[in-house]
Amino acid sequence: MNSKIKVGIAQLKISNDKTEVENKLINKVKELAKEGAELIVLQELHNTPYFCQTEDVNKFDLAETIPGRSTQIYGDLAKDLEVVIVLSLFEKRAKGLYHNTAVVIEKDGTIAGKYRKMHIPDDPGFYEKFYFTEGDLGFNPIKTSVGTLGVLICWDQWYPEAARIMALKGADLLIYPTAIGWDLNDTKEELIRQLDSWITIQKSHSVANGIPVVSVNRVGFEKADNSEEGISFWGNSFITGSQGELLQHFGESEEKGVVEVDLEKTEHTRRIWPFFRDRRFEDYSEILNRYLD
Amino acid sequence: MNSKIKVGIAQLKISNDKTEVENKLINKVKELAKEGAELIVLQELHNTPYFCQTEDVNKFDLAETIPGRSTQIYGDLAKDLEVVIVLSLFEKRAKGLYHNTAVVIEKDGTIAGKYRKMHIPDDPGFYEKFYFTEGDLGFNPIKTSVGTLGVLICWDQWYPEAARIMALKGADLLIYPTAIGWDLNDTKEELIRQLDSWITIQKSHSVANGIPVVSVNRVGFEKADNSEEGISFWGNSFITGSQGELLQHFGESEEKGVVEVDLEKTEHTRRIWPFFRDRRFEDYSEILNRYLD
Repeated sequence: MNSKIKVGIAQLKISNDKTEVENKLINKVKELAKEGAELIVLQELHNTPYFCQTEDVNKFDLAETIPGRSTQIYGDLAKDLEVVIVLSLFEKRAKGLYHNTAVVIEKDGTIAGKYRKMHIPDDPGFYEKFYFTEGDLGFNPIKTSVGTLGVLICWDQWYPEAARIMALKGADLLIYPTAIGWDLNDTKEELIRQLDSWITIQKSHSVANGIPVVSVNRVGFEKADNSEEGISFWGNSFITGSQGELLQHFGESEEKGVVEVDLEKTEHTRRIWPFFRDRRFEDYSEILNRYLD
Repeated sequence: MNSKIKVGIAQLKISNDKTEVENKLINKVKELAKEGAELIVLQELHNTPYFCQTEDVNKFDLAETIPGRSTQIYGDLAKDLEVVIVLSLFEKRAKGLYHNTAVVIEKDGTIAGKYRKMHIPDDPGFYEKFYFTEGDLGFNPIKTSVGTLGVLICWDQWYPEAARIMALKGADLLIYPTAIGWDLNDTKEELIRQLDSWITIQKSHSVANGIPVVSVNRVGFEKADNSEEGISFWGNSFITGSQGELLQHFGESEEKGVVEVDLEKTEHTRRIWPFFRDRRFEDYSEILNRYLD
């Protein structure tokens, strides 16, 4: 394993045309590999529009099994291109049982591991509790040939606990496929506050744990069914180094890029500010409560 | 209790002249109260230079008991001015047993509670493990007439666990008296990264918990004993609102100010992004380990 790895990310608009989306994604992965990427991260629910804007039983048809069509396509691609791919998709686990899942595919095309989204949001326009059963695989980083990947998904990004457990279990970096956007009826000031807090919380996981963070968000406006309203996905995908410093930060359009991330810098970062040495973990048990009243 | 409280903060240079320092501090508190402050927060180890730059047994003479001289002075002042004061000082608990402690003084001059720094740093120039015994009071917010204060101290700011426990126990806001600065031998890029990560991690506690953060740091260059080297305390004290938005942010000089903070905004913030609803606290037990190998 090299200490420096090239991470490729793409933030994309996703249409309702399944074939177009699939071809677009495959081309992006090929382009990123050509630019030298060894690890490629795609956004949350990479191959469908963000269908959770409404609750519709027919949308469960979008789910796929693991292994299944996507792991086959990207497995072949990973093997061909010799890249590790992190793929977020709508998992059909059993009849009527679905998860929001990330699959990590190794360079040889095999499945290195998967993570099922643990924290499930639910608020107007993001009706995820209807679609996704809470993950039951816990917080376990996935070993690959490019490093140990702490893969989490979207809403998980707001929880320092999840990031910490991944780091304590040896994650070399944290990865967040995500799908977050604005309600454009909000004030400009509110839009700024929301975006800033989203960047802040994820950067803070780098800072607290001394490891890089890769966050890949979708872009573009997607309308809800039978409505003119919808979500304006804010893009702003970014990669931080082990001190939380921004190595890459996209805007609000479709973009892709490859960034070198130094996993060995964690050693230096944790020597300078040795937070792990001083954790008072015997005094943290109250964290295992809903609330303390 | 009002939902909007006026928080007064001062970031100051501290000299070796004890009387001068004491008068300066008393005047600042009076000025802040005159400007309408109801809650006043002073920096870490407010009334001494940052003596931890070297290990010197004689420096234990700087410690004081609680109650003691400072709680008397600021108790009288709090009663006079009808303000709540958060005071960080070097506590002499028993013969040869010392803590880095914050005392909260109520408007009537009584001690509302105290917090003993739980996470103790130790790195070149910050030899705190020599001076301060680890706190043994746990993470308990302190109830006052202006709100429930989650008082933590400096190095604690890097630990999301500490902030979370305070929030789960009902803290209306988090307060960090702190003393952090640069080694000016570092590169300009490193200085920027360090300052940015310090702001990021504390803002993130606002974001994760939906509560304001008040962080008060010292300023000015302080030389280590018998050396031309020292620490350049970087100031940059700040106050965030419940979404992590900056309400106040000082520069690198002596400054003071009063900011209105709305404690009721937490309700709205947590409704929009209900992180507390979705915590998977039954799956966080691994956090209670030093490391998981």
